[in-house]
Amino acid sequence: MPTIVVEVMPKAELLDPQGKATKGALSRLGKSEFTDVRLGKRFELTVEGPITDQVRADVAEIAEHVLSNSVIEDVVAIHYPEGEK
Amino acid sequence: MPTIVVEVMPKAELLDPQGKATKGALSRLGKSEFTDVRLGKRFELTVEGPITDQVRADVAEIAEHVLSNSVIEDVVAIHYPEGEK
Repeated sequence: MPTIVVEVMPKAELLDPQGKATKGALSRLGKSEFTDVRLGKRFELTVEGPITDQVRADVAEIAEHVLSNSVIEDVVAIHYPEGEK
Repeated sequence: MPTIVVEVMPKAELLDPQGKATKGALSRLGKSEFTDVRLGKRFELTVEGPITDQVRADVAEIAEHVLSNSVIEDVVAIHYPEGEK
């Protein structure tokens, strides 16, 4: 069954404490070439049946209103399986 | 500065309660075409300077040992900026 990927990141102006903690861990390990780390979410949605225009409309809607909080997050990408229009 | 993306997902055999909760929310909203939802992480690593072989080796290493827990998670993708070799 096709899988659609929705990627959500915290808005650039937010602090992202988890990303900062990861950046700190990398610095302590000597990996100082990484100047910033940000941590977002990656959703995999499995769809039953073909990816119709209705499915695409539903994905766009839930990405904005269910999978992300538009006050603090941006939907940065929605990937459909290759070969789907 | 170039940004490298590392994508991490819970292993397929794990339950992923956050994904299950999201799936339940979609079903309650009438979006029943989505038969499964899984929730993983998306890291954006900002690198100072060019993406050398050493940077690539470091990214592969930290993706496996810092950004993911190989007991419960898989690194599913590492994306380098376009135009980088």
